[in-house]
Amino acid sequence: MKNAQNSDTITDMQVQTLKGFRDFLPKEARKRKYMMDTFKKVFESYGFEGMETPVLEFDEILTGKYGDEGDKLMYRFEDNGGRKVAMRYDQTVPLARFVAQYNNLLPTPFKRYQIQNVFRAENTQKGRYREFIQCDIDTVGIDSANADAEIIATAASALKALGFTKFKVLINDRSVFEGLSMDAIIVLDKLKKIGEDGVVEEMVVKGICTNAEEAKNLLQSIIDTKPTERLQEIFEALEKMGLSKENFEFSPTLARGLDYYTGMIFEIEAEEYPVGSICGGGRYDKLIGMFAGRDIPAVGFAFGFDRTYEAMDALNLFPEEMTNATSKVLVSVFNKKLEKKSIEVSSQLRSNNINAEVYLSETKMEKQLKYADQKGIPYVIILGPEEVEKNVVTLKNLKDRTQQQLPLEDVIKKLA
Amino acid sequence: MKNAQNSDTITDMQVQTLKGFRDFLPKEARKRKYMMDTFKKVFESYGFEGMETPVLEFDEILTGKYGDEGDKLMYRFEDNGGRKVAMRYDQTVPLARFVAQYNNLLPTPFKRYQIQNVFRAENTQKGRYREFIQCDIDTVGIDSANADAEIIATAASALKALGFTKFKVLINDRSVFEGLSMDAIIVLDKLKKIGEDGVVEEMVVKGICTNAEEAKNLLQSIIDTKPTERLQEIFEALEKMGLSKENFEFSPTLARGLDYYTGMIFEIEAEEYPVGSICGGGRYDKLIGMFAGRDIPAVGFAFGFDRTYEAMDALNLFPEEMTNATSKVLVSVFNKKLEKKSIEVSSQLRSNNINAEVYLSETKMEKQLKYADQKGIPYVIILGPEEVEKNVVTLKNLKDRTQQQLPLEDVIKKLA
Repeated sequence: MKNAQNSDTITDMQVQTLKGFRDFLPKEARKRKYMMDTFKKVFESYGFEGMETPVLEFDEILTGKYGDEGDKLMYRFEDNGGRKVAMRYDQTVPLARFVAQYNNLLPTPFKRYQIQNVFRAENTQKGRYREFIQCDIDTVGIDSANADAEIIATAASALKALGFTKFKVLINDRSVFEGLSMDAIIVLDKLKKIGEDGVVEEMVVKGICTNAEEAKNLLQSIIDTKPTERLQEIFEALEKMGLSKENFEFSPTLARGLDYYTGMIFEIEAEEYPVGSICGGGRYDKLIGMFAGRDIPAVGFAFGFDRTYEAMDALNLFPEEMTNATSKVLVSVFNKKLEKKSIEVSSQLRSNNINAEVYLSETKMEKQLKYADQKGIPYVIILGPEEVEKNVVTLKNLKDRTQQQLPLEDVIKKLA
Repeated sequence: MKNAQNSDTITDMQVQTLKGFRDFLPKEARKRKYMMDTFKKVFESYGFEGMETPVLEFDEILTGKYGDEGDKLMYRFEDNGGRKVAMRYDQTVPLARFVAQYNNLLPTPFKRYQIQNVFRAENTQKGRYREFIQCDIDTVGIDSANADAEIIATAASALKALGFTKFKVLINDRSVFEGLSMDAIIVLDKLKKIGEDGVVEEMVVKGICTNAEEAKNLLQSIIDTKPTERLQEIFEALEKMGLSKENFEFSPTLARGLDYYTGMIFEIEAEEYPVGSICGGGRYDKLIGMFAGRDIPAVGFAFGFDRTYEAMDALNLFPEEMTNATSKVLVSVFNKKLEKKSIEVSSQLRSNNINAEVYLSETKMEKQLKYADQKGIPYVIILGPEEVEKNVVTLKNLKDRTQQQLPLEDVIKKLA
């Protein structure tokens, strides 16, 4: 990078991010990292493996795959070499390309997770961003009840690992709607929101049924549907996988992505954060083969990363230490003469696996304490002539404002 | 996503990534994750905290900051709303914007790391990509020898944590070149590559010195330079920070980014992988304030992520288990009747913190073993009628092709 030639001509520039794009300050970045690490750990415990695709793809790979709406919201442009390119819009079309391209290198089934950012020129509103993380997990190349169940179990385990306790997996199979029009299905899906009367009324208004009686019967017949044999197999497997019966239920009116899914569909609701589902997925056997030129079965789900983050914030699920800095202790500098001593102590703490930083210059103690406070470092070590004389350090707890003189070995034991 | 409407019209499409853009298959993704996790852990142990900026910025924020060459290599376009935007080209200009924008929210010094991808329309060649990870760490807002030393110590600790042992930090200060022309400095910087005679010759050819005698004297005077007082302070701090004297040295002919750096500069070479430096940095006090309208001191470094990866591969520094799958064991399915039993066993293994997956359908044992082999899963559990009868499982080690019958508790102890 060149020195800013024009640093004095840019004072009229608006120093800001684009609408819908976000910076993350350390505290938010730390919470996001915690979520991602937790997701990865759980996904890997079930044998899903990470993979990555590029931000830019050939435009023709992505366009037409998300409908007209998608093409409009996609970031598309011509690069310097005149190539038409587009920015990652989701992780499913790239997965389809990936599967076609590396077919003979991948095991069957191919179980993958992908946690990358995607780009959509959405109307920005609360909780809608133009760059956001998608957190996907898919099992490609196998059509079995156990594969379906495993996806659900993995999603549920991830939620548990994040601290969610009261959640419900709603499960359905798109075959339940066989013979129904898309219009009818869309109305049925609103049952929770508008109630039985609402559904009946809308069925009539929309001309799906000729009268209320007919609409009532239709609704009742759906509600009375028994789980398909495949769903029963999935439910049985879920229990063997350790998911409690309280955490899942058959939901015959659940409809999602019906032009996308071909079999089992599910959503998870956090009961204490009732803002709709925080993750969902299902079986989609007609998509992943789009570039391979043949049907390839697949089942998967996606976490709404930002929504999950909001739910965790609202329910206070982030661990206490997320409010702290990554440093456990600041070793303050008493004076120039004792500075090197402080550096050594910080070094010793780190060798004992304690995240420790030394204040980087000699300055007023007040300023150093303020630094620790602002950053959220819970402890400060003071090392003055008295401490050196007695061969101890003063350990100050910034939370409860207490302090004590201890040998360094005891501090290490205490903080480790 | 819509069902692929046009899946049968795309057979003429080239299913590939753009030149210079990469997919990462699970094995590579795992190694990259290992590196990133290691970097973050070390950075955080010194009190550096993660932050993120968006991929897209207002074009006017980025253009003109990287010279004409940078403007040419930058991905710039107009978005759907007619805004001129540009893709992240490095992480320093975004940091400068960030510092100006959140000035009063950030502690002083602000110690941050940022590990995100950047985009440059470079000529692609071995080891040069158009999307690649930058791994930066900077201390902003303070000008002290300890800040300089800490950056070097952190870089060295990160290398050590990755397994590098024989590396050398070459350190200089740009004040060593005071009074010399840029041309002269560029030639001096080649000393290692072209030797003393080469430098002398080039000094004369380029007209920097009028004859060989003068050039020899100039070179000798640089080589004889003593470290500045500031450098001596840095060296002393480095030792207190635990960096061995063998791992760093004063290198008065080292020159890098002289239009960028204002004080200490350094590079690290892995002696067993002599392809130039794998990371470098220095003090740059004139850049970070470009949007704030005042000078803000800063010191930092960047790892060449891809080059470090190559070096680790070449030196065999990735841990053995990187060649394995994330799953430690595959629980195979003997037959439909015993399938649920296998699911339960996999579930029990996971509850004991052992990454375990169950094969997702009933199929030939041979196929299941091949799956484990291809994925690199080191163990397979077999659970047939005999095992159920004896209340044991058969644990097959795919590496040495041995197997033994054990109670599940013993398997858990063995694999935990």
